[in-house]
Amino acid sequence: MARYQIILAYDGTGFLGSQRQANRRTAQSELEKALRRLGWQGSSVLLAGRTDSGVHASGQVAVFDLGWNHPLEELVRALNSHLPADIAVREAQIVRDDFHPRFDAVSRCYRYRLFCQPVRDPLRERYAWRLWPPPEIDAIQAAASLLIGKHDFAAFGTPPRAGSSTVRTVMKAEWWNQADEWSFEVQADAFLYRMVRRMVYLQVAAGQGKIPAEAMADLLEGRPRVVPAGLAPANGLTLIAVSYPQQ
Amino acid sequence: MARYQIILAYDGTGFLGSQRQANRRTAQSELEKALRRLGWQGSSVLLAGRTDSGVHASGQVAVFDLGWNHPLEELVRALNSHLPADIAVREAQIVRDDFHPRFDAVSRCYRYRLFCQPVRDPLRERYAWRLWPPPEIDAIQAAASLLIGKHDFAAFGTPPRAGSSTVRTVMKAEWWNQADEWSFEVQADAFLYRMVRRMVYLQVAAGQGKIPAEAMADLLEGRPRVVPAGLAPANGLTLIAVSYPQQ
Repeated sequence: MARYQIILAYDGTGFLGSQRQANRRTAQSELEKALRRLGWQGSSVLLAGRTDSGVHASGQVAVFDLGWNHPLEELVRALNSHLPADIAVREAQIVRDDFHPRFDAVSRCYRYRLFCQPVRDPLRERYAWRLWPPPEIDAIQAAASLLIGKHDFAAFGTPPRAGSSTVRTVMKAEWWNQADEWSFEVQADAFLYRMVRRMVYLQVAAGQGKIPAEAMADLLEGRPRVVPAGLAPANGLTLIAVSYPQQ
Repeated sequence: MARYQIILAYDGTGFLGSQRQANRRTAQSELEKALRRLGWQGSSVLLAGRTDSGVHASGQVAVFDLGWNHPLEELVRALNSHLPADIAVREAQIVRDDFHPRFDAVSRCYRYRLFCQPVRDPLRERYAWRLWPPPEIDAIQAAASLLIGKHDFAAFGTPPRAGSSTVRTVMKAEWWNQADEWSFEVQADAFLYRMVRRMVYLQVAAGQGKIPAEAMADLLEGRPRVVPAGLAPANGLTLIAVSYPQQ
């Protein structure tokens, strides 16, 4: 018996989020089903981050205890042969027995993709938000730079437990674009629920000139400010990495 | 009443090909359904190219006659509001009354995408073939160069009507790769059924050293040659453009 850490990738379109829920198709329940085919008898795998319904992952981390007497590549192959097409194990490694993918994580990194087109494009909209008109690159980058640092993000999302802290530290918040494709990458010690999608929505609003640049600063400093409600759609968002202290 | 030419894009995953078939979900039947909502009473739209089940399109061309008294952008918007999420009209223009998208076409261009990874990747496999081990770039490019020109492609596909010509002229056949992503772009006056997928399959076999480079030359010159049967999967293929003489 050893503790295994795996990197999990999934297309979130067909999942009601990451966490197991009764009778709902989730990344966790699919992984647990596949593990049971390998003799796993645990009650629950541990996941590093909770992703909302429709959010994708290329770097979700899951942990479970398993008796496995074959090479790690065989574990990856065996799990993938039991997992459906929209979810796969990318890598596996053995970790120490008390390793916890959520509590031991030092940061999470998400990517949000969007593309600017006036007309629908079915070959791109599964993994990116279609937006029109395009934001202004300087304005959206200025909004992003305000997010960096330690702030109370209460205006951007809700904490895992009501009443717990809404302070988070953002280490990276960067936009780049090429032709009509835009990407936003954001790394923080942890995120509130909906925080990335709300961040993207407000930055886009600033980039399109719908809210003044100072609105975001006000929200981050706890000053009351009326801004449009809304979230960037889930389909543009991917959890790309979870980081741990050097082991 | 005027004749309209539209550029159609679709994610082929949910379609049984392009052409209408009784009780099957196809790109053509979805377009015709949307047109009927705008008062279209024709019996059939015309399509430039037939795409197989699962093949995508970003540049399929369709033609129909319609009475429409609003701007072209309104036609695009109206059709898209009636089309499901996996198919959309990208552009529309008026063409001469006897324009035919298939007979008037001078060439078609397809792109095939693949990526080289030993492990499944659910975020990429919808639009690309996962291949392992990687082909050798020189070998696959050498195989591609043999395809250029006028050849009898009988070994690569079947003609639209049994007994009709299998001679086609390939103007472009190019591979390029970046990191683990590979793309093949091929342009010809017309294609036999399955021709692109068969071409990709055999070039990959040559690139992986499974068949000698001369095998492809033999097939193109009508010399008997035993080669592995098989087709590259449909999900990697996209019809990207159909060209017409300058109007």
